[in-house]
Amino acid sequence: MRAAWLENGQLSVRDLPGPDAAPGWARIRVTLAGICGTDLELARGYKGGFAGVPGHEFVGVVEAAPDAPEWLGRRVTGSITIACGSCDLCRAGLPGHCRNRRVLGVLGHPGALADCLTLPVANLHAVPDSVPDAAAVFCEPLAAALQVLEQVTVTPQTRAAVIGDGRLGLPAAWALARTGAAVTLFGHHPERTDWGAERGVRWQPADSGEPRAFDLVLEATGAPGGAAAALRLVRPRGTLVLKSTMAAPATLNLAGVVVDEITVVGSRCGPFPKALAWLAAADAPPVARLVAAEYPLDRAPEAWARAQRPGTLKVLLRPGIRNGSAAPSVLPLP
Amino acid sequence: MRAAWLENGQLSVRDLPGPDAAPGWARIRVTLAGICGTDLELARGYKGGFAGVPGHEFVGVVEAAPDAPEWLGRRVTGSITIACGSCDLCRAGLPGHCRNRRVLGVLGHPGALADCLTLPVANLHAVPDSVPDAAAVFCEPLAAALQVLEQVTVTPQTRAAVIGDGRLGLPAAWALARTGAAVTLFGHHPERTDWGAERGVRWQPADSGEPRAFDLVLEATGAPGGAAAALRLVRPRGTLVLKSTMAAPATLNLAGVVVDEITVVGSRCGPFPKALAWLAAADAPPVARLVAAEYPLDRAPEAWARAQRPGTLKVLLRPGIRNGSAAPSVLPLP
Repeated sequence: MRAAWLENGQLSVRDLPGPDAAPGWARIRVTLAGICGTDLELARGYKGGFAGVPGHEFVGVVEAAPDAPEWLGRRVTGSITIACGSCDLCRAGLPGHCRNRRVLGVLGHPGALADCLTLPVANLHAVPDSVPDAAAVFCEPLAAALQVLEQVTVTPQTRAAVIGDGRLGLPAAWALARTGAAVTLFGHHPERTDWGAERGVRWQPADSGEPRAFDLVLEATGAPGGAAAALRLVRPRGTLVLKSTMAAPATLNLAGVVVDEITVVGSRCGPFPKALAWLAAADAPPVARLVAAEYPLDRAPEAWARAQRPGTLKVLLRPGIRNGSAAPSVLPLP
Repeated sequence: MRAAWLENGQLSVRDLPGPDAAPGWARIRVTLAGICGTDLELARGYKGGFAGVPGHEFVGVVEAAPDAPEWLGRRVTGSITIACGSCDLCRAGLPGHCRNRRVLGVLGHPGALADCLTLPVANLHAVPDSVPDAAAVFCEPLAAALQVLEQVTVTPQTRAAVIGDGRLGLPAAWALARTGAAVTLFGHHPERTDWGAERGVRWQPADSGEPRAFDLVLEATGAPGGAAAALRLVRPRGTLVLKSTMAAPATLNLAGVVVDEITVVGSRCGPFPKALAWLAAADAPPVARLVAAEYPLDRAPEAWARAQRPGTLKVLLRPGIRNGSAAPSVLPLP
C-alpha cells in the first residue's frame, strides 16, 4: 500500500506491504483522511519517538472482512481505539481506556494517512447515505467535541466559553451551542466572527474575556499556555474542560484550582454514532468551513507542512488521487 | 489584645488594640487555636506579602455580640470566610467564594492566633456540650475533609487513596472511610500504620501504590510534588481531589489528565455543622492523636517553629495561659 510515514519528526511517502484483514477485522480503502493536531504533536515528540503511519480521521470503503461479509462495500468511518477486551477497564465498560490498547495512527497500529488501513469490525460505523465523504471525515473530531456533553451537564443557562477558534475549538463551540447554552468563542481569527453566529456562538478576541465569569470553559488552543488562560475565565466552583493533547508539558496553577474549587475535566475521544447522527441532522455543523486544503496522498509532506502553519484549519488527504494527477485544491476561506 | 503577628515570614507576639464587635458581629475570647499548613504557607509567600494575625482554626467563648445577646457566653467555633452578601456569587448561594471576601487570618481580617477575634454572628457555630475544646478546635480541618464528600460521590465500592499521612491526610482518610469505601493511606510515617485501621484505613509507604488503580485519589501532602504523585494512582476516568494550597507553584501533566479523562476537583473549606456533628457522634474521629504539642500564646514563635518541622502534626496555642505560666505540653506520639 501507499502510505505517509512519520519518523524522527519527518513525513515521507512510501510503499509498504498491504495489510490483510484477520478474522474479526476489516480492511478499508481510505477515501479521505484528515490531519489532526495530535498527528502534528506526534511529530513533536508526543508519545515518544513515533515511527509509523499517522492519521486517525478517515472515511473509506470496506474491501475485505473475512467473517463479516455484510460490511463489504459499505462506506465507513471507525473508532480509533483497538481494545484488548479482557483487561479490567475493558470489562468495566471502558474499552476506550483499555490498558493494552492500540490506537489507529497513534499507538501501535498503522493509521489513516494511507490508501488502506485495518480495524476490528467492532470499530466500524456505517456512514449514512446523506452524509458525504467530505463531512464524514470529520466524524472523529466532532465526536471528540460531543464528548464534553457526555461528561459535563450543559443547559441553556450555562455561560460557556471556548478558548481557541481553530479546528478543535470551532466544533466544540458548535456542540456546546447545540444545547442552547450561551457560548463565547475566544480566538485570534476575526474573520471567523460569524462562523457560529447563526448557532448562537459569539466571537471575541483572545484574552478579552472577563475573569472568573464563566460556568464552563473549554480549552481548545492546542498551545501549552491555553489551560492557564482558560482557567482564568472559570468562575469559582465552575468547570474547566481540557481537550488538547500536547508534547510540551502544560502546567496549571493548582492553588487557584483548590481555592476556587474548580473541577477540571480531561476529555478525549467521543461517541461516533452521535457525531454521525449530527452530520445527518438538519442542524448539521458546517464542517466544509473547516477545510483549508485537500491534497493527494503522494503530496502528503506538502499537506503536512501546510497543516503545521499556525492558524491552519483542516488539511485533508485524498489517497485515490495519485502523484501529479491533481493539484491540491486549496480552498479559499469561506 | 495579645496576638501573634506574622510579617516578612517572621512570627512575633505583640499587644494590639482590642477589637470591638460591630452590629452583626461577635467578639470571641479564644480558648484554643490550631496552626494549619496554610498558615505556614502564608509565611512562605502564599497570598503575597502577608502581614497580620494568622490563624483560622479555633474554639472560644462569645464575650460580646451587640445585637445577638443569645450568643453571649456560648462556646463556639466559626466559619472563616466573611462574605459581602451582595456579589453575584453570594447571591448564587456561594458565600464561601464571595468576590469581596475576607478570610479569618488569611485575607484582610485578623486571625485566631490571638486571645481575641471577631467574626460576623452569621459565621458562628455553637459547639455541642459533649465536644471538648480539644476536639472542637479541629472543626475547621475536619469540615475541610468532609467537603470532599460534598463534591464527589463515594460509595463502599470506591477504591480510594489518600496521599499524605499528616494533619490533612489523616482526617481526609477517616472521612472517606466513614462512607464504607476501601481507603489506602500513603505516607512516610509507619508509626501511624494503625491510626485508621479500626476504621478500615490501610496504610502503605509513600510511592508504593499501584499506578492507575484507584477510582478516587486525594492529594493531601502539602508538597509541590504531591499532585503529580497522586495523579499517577488515578485510574482512567477516575477522580483526583486536590486539597493543598501552597505558595510554590504546583504543576500537573495535563496530557495525562486529557488522555485518561481524569476529573480533577479542587476542594477547600467545608460544612462546619457536619464536622461538629461528627465530633459529637459515636464514631468521632480520634483527633487527640493529631496533637503534637500545645503552647501558651506568648510562646507562639516556638510553636510556629515546631509546626514547621517536617512531619509535625497539629500544634495548638492556648491564649489563656500567659508567658511563663506553663511549659509547652509536648505530647508523646500515641
